[in-house]
Amino acid sequence: MTAVDFAAFVDRLATASGEAILPFFRTSLGVEDKAKGAGFDPVTAADKAGESVMRALIRKTFPEHGIIGEEHGDFGLDAEYVWVLDPIDGTRSFITGLPIWGTLIGLTRRGRPCFGLMHQPFVGETFSGDGASARYRGPGGERRLRTRSCARLGDAMLMSTSPSMFAEAERAAFDRVAADVRQTRWGGDCYAYAMLAAGHLDLVVEADLKPFDIVALIPIVEGAGGVITTWDGGSAADGGRIVAAGDRRLHEAALERLSRL
Amino acid sequence: MTAVDFAAFVDRLATASGEAILPFFRTSLGVEDKAKGAGFDPVTAADKAGESVMRALIRKTFPEHGIIGEEHGDFGLDAEYVWVLDPIDGTRSFITGLPIWGTLIGLTRRGRPCFGLMHQPFVGETFSGDGASARYRGPGGERRLRTRSCARLGDAMLMSTSPSMFAEAERAAFDRVAADVRQTRWGGDCYAYAMLAAGHLDLVVEADLKPFDIVALIPIVEGAGGVITTWDGGSAADGGRIVAAGDRRLHEAALERLSRL
Repeated sequence: MTAVDFAAFVDRLATASGEAILPFFRTSLGVEDKAKGAGFDPVTAADKAGESVMRALIRKTFPEHGIIGEEHGDFGLDAEYVWVLDPIDGTRSFITGLPIWGTLIGLTRRGRPCFGLMHQPFVGETFSGDGASARYRGPGGERRLRTRSCARLGDAMLMSTSPSMFAEAERAAFDRVAADVRQTRWGGDCYAYAMLAAGHLDLVVEADLKPFDIVALIPIVEGAGGVITTWDGGSAADGGRIVAAGDRRLHEAALERLSRL
Repeated sequence: MTAVDFAAFVDRLATASGEAILPFFRTSLGVEDKAKGAGFDPVTAADKAGESVMRALIRKTFPEHGIIGEEHGDFGLDAEYVWVLDPIDGTRSFITGLPIWGTLIGLTRRGRPCFGLMHQPFVGETFSGDGASARYRGPGGERRLRTRSCARLGDAMLMSTSPSMFAEAERAAFDRVAADVRQTRWGGDCYAYAMLAAGHLDLVVEADLKPFDIVALIPIVEGAGGVITTWDGGSAADGGRIVAAGDRRLHEAALERLSRL
């Protein structure tokens, strides 16, 4: 990928996606019911518009790369580089007007996440990382992202998107962790991982994640000094049950409670 | 209050509070534990700084007015006009870095809320109302706020800040409403009422609110065409158990389930 300025390209992807999505934010347009009555799984025209514009840019710039996307399916999964896209992570926040959703842009090389970016176009902030370092850019300027130190569950702030993501046995395992932390906060989606990378909370425990929910966030969390795995300590890249911690000691303490599923 | 441009004055209050608060947002500075071990009720140096600067401006401009504030106590409660201030509504969002907290500035005349404003300085958006109309100003410009039509619980999006705000009997009443709505979302604080006023959700049901949590939001919700009362249909101005709906028919349906506490 030497002929292309990579940082400029991913900025262009994020900007183009944001421009496609924002006209739909805080309007009553574009809400569909993907599950058609079986529960309520909202997806917006914005999601499709954001993914389309990103796919077109990737296909034009890196025709040899693969793409995994929530809305428009997968392509070229055997390529060395595969992009993993989620234009709107946090659709429930999006449809209720809360500015805590994000566009997720991940890149894997031979199956391993090597770059990730989370962009919130309404607030105008971006979190990115490559596994070795991570950066923030927003209204208040640019800075390096660093997780904070927190060795003990008793001192930890825990965040998780929704109780509804857990099956019964998973909820019991989650509750073993939650019982020991200082405070639990629900809601968050991709912002939970971004705030962990930025050192504002200590622990994220979730389940039922898809690869496009998490791949982009792995190089950000790891680049900021955090640890992110499945509940049994495996790679987070395939989604499923995920635990992320800003401090390796806290990750071990959480894993001990989560692995006895 | 004829000698002062009221709109300019409340803008100045909000701006000054935001400038006092923002240096503390997304830093590790300033977190205290107000409850000193009995639970975890965070309050930040930012909260105190925001309230101090607003109180000073009010005392200088309207020395005859009273003030109710979370951090620095009450003053002049028998005055015709009393300001009701909460510099950071949504302290849990604040300390975890999520930009969905707000500065609440309410004004009562002879005990009745007559003006309210909610300001989010990081995002740069303001919701305000006087009970007859309500307005939004933010990154995308200015517009009038209007609740959306939603007559039936089965079509309604419900938001509530946290399950922990409900006592046991209250939770049972809340669950009677939640069982019948299309979707429930936790988290929100003042943003729940702002998004209801803006027509992005239909119903807010909460408990254990203080006057400074709700007074500023009443003229916004009512000005946008919504209805906001206690669970037994009384004035919301004293806080407690609150139900707000964008549509009067929905408010009645919720009230029917909540009043059998």
